[in-house]
Amino acid sequence: MTDAPNATASKEEIQDLSAITHEEIFAGHLGGKLSVELSSPLETQRDLSIAYTPGVAQVSRAIAEDESLAKRYTWTDRLVVVVSDGSAVLGLGDIGPRASLPVMEGKSALFKKFAGLDSIPIVLDTKDVDEIVETLIRLRPSFGAVNLEDISAPRCFEIEKRVVEALDCPVMHDDQHGTAIVVLAALNGAAAVQGRATSGLKVVVSGAGAAGVACTNILLAAGVADVTVLDSKGIVSRDRGDLNAVKADLAQRTNPRGLTGTAADALAGADVFLGLSAGTIAEELIASMAPEAIVFAMSNPDPEIHPDVASKYAAIVATGRSDFPNQINNVLAFPGVFKGALDAGARRITEGMKIAAANAILGVVADELAVDKIVPSPLDPRVAPAVADAVAAAARAEGVA
Amino acid sequence: MTDAPNATASKEEIQDLSAITHEEIFAGHLGGKLSVELSSPLETQRDLSIAYTPGVAQVSRAIAEDESLAKRYTWTDRLVVVVSDGSAVLGLGDIGPRASLPVMEGKSALFKKFAGLDSIPIVLDTKDVDEIVETLIRLRPSFGAVNLEDISAPRCFEIEKRVVEALDCPVMHDDQHGTAIVVLAALNGAAAVQGRATSGLKVVVSGAGAAGVACTNILLAAGVADVTVLDSKGIVSRDRGDLNAVKADLAQRTNPRGLTGTAADALAGADVFLGLSAGTIAEELIASMAPEAIVFAMSNPDPEIHPDVASKYAAIVATGRSDFPNQINNVLAFPGVFKGALDAGARRITEGMKIAAANAILGVVADELAVDKIVPSPLDPRVAPAVADAVAAAARAEGVA
Repeated sequence: MTDAPNATASKEEIQDLSAITHEEIFAGHLGGKLSVELSSPLETQRDLSIAYTPGVAQVSRAIAEDESLAKRYTWTDRLVVVVSDGSAVLGLGDIGPRASLPVMEGKSALFKKFAGLDSIPIVLDTKDVDEIVETLIRLRPSFGAVNLEDISAPRCFEIEKRVVEALDCPVMHDDQHGTAIVVLAALNGAAAVQGRATSGLKVVVSGAGAAGVACTNILLAAGVADVTVLDSKGIVSRDRGDLNAVKADLAQRTNPRGLTGTAADALAGADVFLGLSAGTIAEELIASMAPEAIVFAMSNPDPEIHPDVASKYAAIVATGRSDFPNQINNVLAFPGVFKGALDAGARRITEGMKIAAANAILGVVADELAVDKIVPSPLDPRVAPAVADAVAAAARAEGVA
Repeated sequence: MTDAPNATASKEEIQDLSAITHEEIFAGHLGGKLSVELSSPLETQRDLSIAYTPGVAQVSRAIAEDESLAKRYTWTDRLVVVVSDGSAVLGLGDIGPRASLPVMEGKSALFKKFAGLDSIPIVLDTKDVDEIVETLIRLRPSFGAVNLEDISAPRCFEIEKRVVEALDCPVMHDDQHGTAIVVLAALNGAAAVQGRATSGLKVVVSGAGAAGVACTNILLAAGVADVTVLDSKGIVSRDRGDLNAVKADLAQRTNPRGLTGTAADALAGADVFLGLSAGTIAEELIASMAPEAIVFAMSNPDPEIHPDVASKYAAIVATGRSDFPNQINNVLAFPGVFKGALDAGARRITEGMKIAAANAILGVVADELAVDKIVPSPLDPRVAPAVADAVAAAARAEGVA
């Protein structure tokens, strides 16, 4: 391994990415980023007789008699499919399945790199919810787990719910729950640096899409009492008549002070801003927050507010960018979450497993926490194994394994 | 590479496979036979920024603007999906998708080993023709070519026809056409050893399933005038009232002497017996064939007649087994056929490309032909590149590339 990531990386690894040229990026994607390789040799007639006919017939016959043996004698027990319809890709929107494929290949590469899992991208030429669910049901014997990716809200909520119900294996929409897990870890990290309890913070979540809804849910599950959600029309409150079912449900469970109005009304005196939309937030709104404010401006590639500007008012600032401190990146969560779930043989991924993952992420840097290090580096090789162990233990404790 | 296959292998590589134990076979399949690997490094923050966010967004945006760039910047252009519903696996029959998976993994491994193509198994939990076709249409952006495998007849004919029509990429049911290509090569090889013209031989095809139908078709396309097909009821002839549509069509195009009756009626005086069913053939029927008879007893793992018994009457004997000379194995065809089709960017696989493949297989051993060497060894590394070149040239010549 050359250029191995530094386990205790901090500021020194923050790079100026403007130095990466268009040509370098396209060269890095030529021919795709994945390959399928043989895990045992196929050089001699004897190898062929073991791996293929006639030997393979004995293995197939054994699985036909006891289907549970497929876990042992095929690759599916370690295989995560990364599934997308290309409807909400990065900040690019609905660019379609073919254009989403480089992102999905990248995701599969990260599964291998950080968790040692095999992973293949499956991009679907349909955006119909019924068809997507039905297709995954038909493909079920081909894989061990499903990472849903870059599917637009609110369709993503129904698709995930129905796929989880239909399949007896780990299923997770990473844009929702991967983000939520890392945000919870980072918020706990920030609160710990400040010596405060996360549960007592007044949190404003900007964005009621996949990530906004999931972050809100995990914060509520983690005991945060005062969460207020913003969508493009302002504060999500019970008196609004224009809310879809998902937002109407959020309105019932958030905004305990009954706030109404705009982002300005929500942010005045708030402790935490979580930016999870593609929008921007005005400097004066950040200035109106409570002292020791925490700002996560996670929109990619352009944060809702430049971190240097946010830092004039906020005590702790995080972004999704690798060229600033405190990078909030899903890669801290999804490899370990799926590895832990598959290691335990879990039939689903529970809220408890997600919170265990968040705690494990933070645990890795418990002794290194600082204003500019509220989460581990995305390249920290200690994270995925720690998350996997915690998630597997939670799965066993909850009886889903 | 250790134990590299011998390019000019012959009798010396024929092995006693009874020496392979049950334990060795199951150990060889533990954890499956495939892995997904990264084709470029992912060690530094810089690597991550190129392969994943933010760099990947540039590649996705480029493909969104010009979908043809997906061939260049994703792995799909080299990716063959091996698709089965597990309904006709080896000689095991309808054992279902999970039990078929070790076979499909083996097939994917052979694609890599012999043609350098990436390949993944897709096993479907449905046997409904409409659902199988529809699923592959939805998955289309995920792959570059489709190898249909171990799907029962007559469903396999309709599925292949409809998938070929629906998709703009190479599609081939290997049990039909892979077998047909290798049988044509071997029959040409046998005829060449005997100094006879293949077109003048009286051929009896035993079996009207996937392989029997396809072999009959390729023999007719190659100019063999006298082909008679047997099914479980006897000779397929125009006067039979019990034929399904596929067999009724065969009856119109074969059996020029208007034979009726049993296998005995077909084989008396025949030059060639092609065994492509799971049945057996009586010794006295082989004895009734014409002098210098050619017998391909290809049922696996148990040939229709033991090759030592067949050799008492026949001049040339071939089987599907690796422990006897003249092994008729699809691996001589499918890796090179798909490589050639993908190399040329072919939109489909034509009859001309299949015949070109058969000629290329035989061409590799043109100077080595003998009674016990009518085709190359399945491990001969010269075969797949020769087949790929011939198939790509045929695709370009036919204007499907």
